[in-house]
Amino acid sequence: MQLHFLIFYGCGKQRVFKSNMDGIITLLTDFGTKDSYVGTMKGVILSINPNATIVDISHQIPPQDIMAGAFVLSQAAPFFPRNTIHIAVVDPGVGGNRKPILVQTDRCFFVGPDNGIFSIALQNEKIKQKIHLTNKDYFLSRISHTFHGRDIFSPVGAYLSKGFDPSAFGKRIKTITKLNFKKPHAKNRKITGQIIYTDRFGNLITNIDEDLIKKVFKSKRFEIMIGSYTIKKLVPSYAYAKKNEIVSLIDSSGFLEIAARDKNAGIELGVKRGDIIILQ
Amino acid sequence: MQLHFLIFYGCGKQRVFKSNMDGIITLLTDFGTKDSYVGTMKGVILSINPNATIVDISHQIPPQDIMAGAFVLSQAAPFFPRNTIHIAVVDPGVGGNRKPILVQTDRCFFVGPDNGIFSIALQNEKIKQKIHLTNKDYFLSRISHTFHGRDIFSPVGAYLSKGFDPSAFGKRIKTITKLNFKKPHAKNRKITGQIIYTDRFGNLITNIDEDLIKKVFKSKRFEIMIGSYTIKKLVPSYAYAKKNEIVSLIDSSGFLEIAARDKNAGIELGVKRGDIIILQ
Amino acid sequence: MQLHFLIFYGCGKQRVFKSNMDGIITLLTDFGTKDSYVGTMKGVILSINPNATIVDISHQIPPQDIMAGAFVLSQAAPFFPRNTIHIAVVDPGVGGNRKPILVQTDRCFFVGPDNGIFSIALQNEKIKQKIHLTNKDYFLSRISHTFHGRDIFSPVGAYLSKGFDPSAFGKRIKTITKLNFKKPHAKNRKITGQIIYTDRFGNLITNIDEDLIKKVFKSKRFEIMIGSYTIKKLVPSYAYAKKNEIVSLIDSSGFLEIAARDKNAGIELGVKRGDIIILQ
Repeated sequence: MQLHFLIFYGCGKQRVFKSNMDGIITLLTDFGTKDSYVGTMKGVILSINPNATIVDISHQIPPQDIMAGAFVLSQAAPFFPRNTIHIAVVDPGVGGNRKPILVQTDRCFFVGPDNGIFSIALQNEKIKQKIHLTNKDYFLSRISHTFHGRDIFSPVGAYLSKGFDPSAFGKRIKTITKLNFKKPHAKNRKITGQIIYTDRFGNLITNIDEDLIKKVFKSKRFEIMIGSYTIKKLVPSYAYAKKNEIVSLIDSSGFLEIAARDKNAGIELGVKRGDIIILQ
Repeated sequence: MQLHFLIFYGCGKQRVFKSNMDGIITLLTDFGTKDSYVGTMKGVILSINPNATIVDISHQIPPQDIMAGAFVLSQAAPFFPRNTIHIAVVDPGVGGNRKPILVQTDRCFFVGPDNGIFSIALQNEKIKQKIHLTNKDYFLSRISHTFHGRDIFSPVGAYLSKGFDPSAFGKRIKTITKLNFKKPHAKNRKITGQIIYTDRFGNLITNIDEDLIKKVFKSKRFEIMIGSYTIKKLVPSYAYAKKNEIVSLIDSSGFLEIAARDKNAGIELGVKRGDIIILQ
Repeated sequence: MQLHFLIFYGCGKQRVFKSNMDGIITLLTDFGTKDSYVGTMKGVILSINPNATIVDISHQIPPQDIMAGAFVLSQAAPFFPRNTIHIAVVDPGVGGNRKPILVQTDRCFFVGPDNGIFSIALQNEKIKQKIHLTNKDYFLSRISHTFHGRDIFSPVGAYLSKGFDPSAFGKRIKTITKLNFKKPHAKNRKITGQIIYTDRFGNLITNIDEDLIKKVFKSKRFEIMIGSYTIKKLVPSYAYAKKNEIVSLIDSSGFLEIAARDKNAGIELGVKRGDIIILQ
């Protein structure tokens, strides 16, 4: 999609063309799709780079829920091509003193507020540099206090998609915010974990991954206690559960998941994010 | 968008370039837009074909509702260009023994589970071949039991959009699953049909088409009985109804529809999919 | 994206190529994303111009709510590149005698029903011409009474994105419908305005802009009365409010907004669009 190999870009901005740049920008926000916010961000991006390919990851992150946004981003990001630019805006601190940042890894870029939104995705990545976005040449000319998704993150992502060097956008920083993302606790033949996400179907995704289960329970024989329920069945897929039956399985990302065939397990069990799950 | 006319594609995969291939891929799922599932599928597609044009038909198909998915797909598909690839994933049987399939018609391609999801759309099409997707060269390298949309259907659709021949993906099969899609019953001057879909506005779409009505009621004089209501008015469009009035009309696909001006007819009448409608 | 500089387009249609045409088409509707309607419009557009870049502004405009649609469009449109084509379909009068229109400004194009949907966006624009869409060469061959988004507006937008001259689509008209968009009333040291929009977060957007406030209250000292509440705090951004506190701020478009940190102000205050707000 990069046809403009030799064109000079105006505004006195330096451009370091990367030939392997695909121009793919993903968006993840809590803006919903009812208002003008997401469309406005896309307008800003296309005004700077009309050849950008913009992909929505989700705009239905629950309002201000940084943890849910971080989880959803971490699930989708690994499947995008090299050099994809991920813009994430779940940003309750907009207009305050949280930094706007850009993180470059050996595979891709993350652009958004420094509030932990990238911290789960970055567990899979090798960080090359972290930049505090300060160069106003790459922002919209008038910066609001409430919509940095439009005024800072979209233009930075768009310039980045045109091949501008990350160092052009600001200065390197050493540390960024991490979420307190709980890891499961394993002792003897018992694992204590948490529900970390409930998806659209009501499937309850835990922080316990397949490798840990294999290590602790070599025989795959264990019971799962969640709320007042005990689940004894680990099935390969939903298709192996009987109608309405509550089962456990390894989800498509390798985590233990509690599901109810053709029903919403979250509602059936009265369980929500943060609730404890015990395997023994 | 196909600029790579002469480029050799790696991985030992055979490529038969079709010059009329537009690289348009549509997605229809019951995944919703809250989670990472749809974004992940798009990441997989763009990793294989960064020039693909991806279009969402709907991701709000009610969970596991194959009939609704099949209906929505059948309404949109005929309006897409030749060679469009339609990926549909409403797939309660994922991980079980339902086949992953590809159907080529004289106009376009359908990729998804063999559970009837394509059967309404295919009523308008001339089938050229049906393929059981078995060639793992075109799948992601690790296949989950719960997310074939990501692991099988997206990569197959993406390779197809690059011009790979359908026969490369697996073996021809003779039969695929059909939904039991009821046809209306006409006798003397009476038609008995069904509500087959309720749209966002609460408009009730029936399986009775304009041609059948013209054949049975040459004069266009008939009454409609639905639930405990009788509707006497067939109007050309919503604009001809009075405020809140319940009327019937021929919808944009040629089917009889029950609508309430500025109201939700489904809620007003207490009627849902599967309910009987009688014209006489 | 315009690679076909010299190609002759069939059907006897005249084509006046504009080299600065980017082929960007936005869509704003009240169709929701559950049904086939939006996907169908995209299929029609891509069948005419496979190189069009289609961007969703919103499909979650409340059914038939022309005012909400006009407001959302007016917020997003200014951020799109020159020559963007904005198709808006909130169209309760479809099939009646409201005109299908095209409005060309010095920056962009608007295509949709003549019911006021463009009237807020046009306040920021210099109109060049208004066209009544009458030339059926640019419509789908069969026009339904209920879905002009598919049959008229999408094909007109798509042909326009290929560089066809606006005058090809119909005759110039002198007047188009305007919404009765209330302006705030200022007298002595008092401003009386209205809530004009509630966004996804429950933020209440008013029709009172920053300039008017500065003119009337030079000191920025005023109280806000809304429903039975009095708000004394004007903060720079959400981050300056305490948890659950109800505050006022200048939003990203320059309008006074009432917001509750981490809560839904609309629900907290029991206030909705049309309700009066007084500053004094």
